[in-house]
Amino acid sequence: MTSATPTGVLRGDGAVLATGPETSPDGSTATTLRVALLGCGVVGSEVARLLTEQAVDLQARVGRPLELVGIAVRRGNRPRPGIDPALFTTDAEALVARADVDLVIEVIGGIEPARSLILTALGHGASVVTANKALLAQDGATLFAAAARAEADLYFEAAVAGAIPIIRPLRESLVGDEITSVIGIVNGTTNFILDKMDTDGAGFGDTLTEAQELGYAEADPTADVEGFDAAAKAAILASLAFHTRVTAADVHREGITEVTSTDIASAKAIGCVVKLLAICQLSDEAEGERTVSVRVHPAMIPRSHPLAGVGGAYNAVFVESRSAGRLMFYGPGAGGSPTASAVLGDLVTVARNRVRGAVGPGESSYAARPVASIGTVTTRYHLSLEVADVAGVLARIAQVFAQHDVSIQTVRQNGRGEDAQLVVVTHRATDAALSATVASLRELDMVRDVTSVMRVEGE
Amino acid sequence: MTSATPTGVLRGDGAVLATGPETSPDGSTATTLRVALLGCGVVGSEVARLLTEQAVDLQARVGRPLELVGIAVRRGNRPRPGIDPALFTTDAEALVARADVDLVIEVIGGIEPARSLILTALGHGASVVTANKALLAQDGATLFAAAARAEADLYFEAAVAGAIPIIRPLRESLVGDEITSVIGIVNGTTNFILDKMDTDGAGFGDTLTEAQELGYAEADPTADVEGFDAAAKAAILASLAFHTRVTAADVHREGITEVTSTDIASAKAIGCVVKLLAICQLSDEAEGERTVSVRVHPAMIPRSHPLAGVGGAYNAVFVESRSAGRLMFYGPGAGGSPTASAVLGDLVTVARNRVRGAVGPGESSYAARPVASIGTVTTRYHLSLEVADVAGVLARIAQVFAQHDVSIQTVRQNGRGEDAQLVVVTHRATDAALSATVASLRELDMVRDVTSVMRVEGE
Repeated sequence: MTSATPTGVLRGDGAVLATGPETSPDGSTATTLRVALLGCGVVGSEVARLLTEQAVDLQARVGRPLELVGIAVRRGNRPRPGIDPALFTTDAEALVARADVDLVIEVIGGIEPARSLILTALGHGASVVTANKALLAQDGATLFAAAARAEADLYFEAAVAGAIPIIRPLRESLVGDEITSVIGIVNGTTNFILDKMDTDGAGFGDTLTEAQELGYAEADPTADVEGFDAAAKAAILASLAFHTRVTAADVHREGITEVTSTDIASAKAIGCVVKLLAICQLSDEAEGERTVSVRVHPAMIPRSHPLAGVGGAYNAVFVESRSAGRLMFYGPGAGGSPTASAVLGDLVTVARNRVRGAVGPGESSYAARPVASIGTVTTRYHLSLEVADVAGVLARIAQVFAQHDVSIQTVRQNGRGEDAQLVVVTHRATDAALSATVASLRELDMVRDVTSVMRVEGE
Repeated sequence: MTSATPTGVLRGDGAVLATGPETSPDGSTATTLRVALLGCGVVGSEVARLLTEQAVDLQARVGRPLELVGIAVRRGNRPRPGIDPALFTTDAEALVARADVDLVIEVIGGIEPARSLILTALGHGASVVTANKALLAQDGATLFAAAARAEADLYFEAAVAGAIPIIRPLRESLVGDEITSVIGIVNGTTNFILDKMDTDGAGFGDTLTEAQELGYAEADPTADVEGFDAAAKAAILASLAFHTRVTAADVHREGITEVTSTDIASAKAIGCVVKLLAICQLSDEAEGERTVSVRVHPAMIPRSHPLAGVGGAYNAVFVESRSAGRLMFYGPGAGGSPTASAVLGDLVTVARNRVRGAVGPGESSYAARPVASIGTVTTRYHLSLEVADVAGVLARIAQVFAQHDVSIQTVRQNGRGEDAQLVVVTHRATDAALSATVASLRELDMVRDVTSVMRVEGE
């Protein structure tokens, strides 16, 4: 690490004053910061390209040149246009263990070998920039502890919502405020699919196929459509917002595979749109010990809500805090260029820190709030029921809701020959109470089917 | 400054390792960071209140307690509920010169005495958090230079768009990217007025009076309605986005006092809405030496543009960059609580830096791009003309546009008895060419009046 650390004298107050370049053992000037890149897929290749193309600007902004010294790839013999082939190595472990590497960018994704590589890099005192939401959501605490031990930086703006600056605003801009809720559309694939279903009236299956053909969904879409990707991001957002450790395992997760065109039409009928939301909430002070709830599920939100207009593969994060009020951050949530922008913003920041011998914010989990189970979380619900169109059906059904302490806000009954459709929107109720209500409703003879149950959020 | 600086040992790489609290000459523990507050109006009193109310959280986030040691006010004898009267002083200069003050918050506003007080504070090594857009836009360079000399922080998130994190994203999140344009609705008063005019169809004067009655506009509304406030913010945004010094004097400024209900109706007719925009643009690489243009004026933007939906006193900033694409930041742009949130976010950040003996980013003006004069800036224009309804009038008018090299995109002619109304929307043209066209049009006998000339942006 000798080439990367500032040489200088200690001011009276302990700050280090740089005294300019010196020559390191290998003959290069000590001012160069050496960067290792792990992964060269869509994001990695864009990062490598921009590191070269924007070298002059990046140097001016950091105060020192950045030099890309190696790129770890799985297969070294694949041609990658525009990138010096001499940079590639299949020995990632050796690359991050190099003593002259100051900054490591990890864009491999997944748990291993990413975790081991990041820990090795931090162990050698390098600062790390990562886009790895899955790893941070599963085992962020281990990484943060390693960064703290090494007094190195661990930055991860690219891990949530692509190019949209949301990590830094939560970690720094809003750190003097009390954030009470974060609601995000943080998965572009599912937003694209739901948006298409809303526009075209098509079902989930057909729309997924179309999204795959257009390149908006992977061949194996599980991580996106089952909500795993959004859940990892929700865990990261909740950890930062509430100064509490939240892992992916703490997140209640429901994907969009069960969303039907009937759900979408039902949402339209009540002036709503269906979105896959990542919802992080801090409970009210008035309700005793404050807990956090973190959940990912499809929900109806009013078309007037700022998140309702977020279309296609775009992402947006809506933040409410005590002093700042309601904020929204909007932009492209994925893709090589946007993610590379976030990675390079972090790279310049950790490089600047390195030049100054400083480190940015580490983990903040002092509040250590309990995570509430989904059964206790309250929200509003929309239900569609097929019922027999007989006298007293509404009274009987209303009685079931009342038995479970679920208060009805509106009911709409549409006759359909011998049957009728009932659309019920409830006041706030716990998930447990609602689930019990639905179970009881299904037991009634006069209820042919419960065709749609969906949460209503954003009011 | 002894009480605030970290005591510790130097690591091998030059970083300072804190070794815990020590006792300072006055007997308090050295861990406390002392805060001086300049100004106790709407924002200052909220900051003072939150510093007390959120003391436990702020301490946990900084790593040390923050202690408010004094509040400079103009009149010391005014009662301010909830704030310890012993904190007030009318001697601001003595407060910022106190050797034990680590952090200074300036929320007085205006040029003097704010500038002198900030320079004194920095001269004593204190870090400064300010909300002072006018001062930063007029003389930011002097402040940044003083902060650099002192190796102290100068943070100013609250100076632009209230609680919306926009300074930090531009200074840090997007610092690895090339920002090409920043378009903001950064003045809540004018947005409230224009929004009201759009909804109610009322004129500027009546709507201003209503805004004043509701507390959305000052008794002397000049700074808002003439665009001075937005121009200061535009200068700050452009400086950060383009790594170039831009002052308020560089900003072309037009207010909203000339906006008529006819303009608003004309905008509606072409699917647009009128907004007061702060527009910062970097010229295309293809056009030779790259310049920046910075301007504030009312403009028509399509109702489909993300900024079009920003209503009431809300603010939003729309950023386009080469890699990240299109981002938008939205939230409350003013008010005591939102501005206090931004101030406290900065306070925690500079306090954390202080604890670590580090400083955050300083001025970045290395690109030093020339500021283009408004005459060379190109945009589209909407014009309404009252003309004599005679044969050949359209041909004659089209000829005038052609003579000045202004290409017409659409023309609509509405007969009105002997007269006709012509509505022209142009392709992109320079301001100089458009001004010359309007002058020539006014000279034509068949042109009774040019009733509206407004730029069309956001496409």
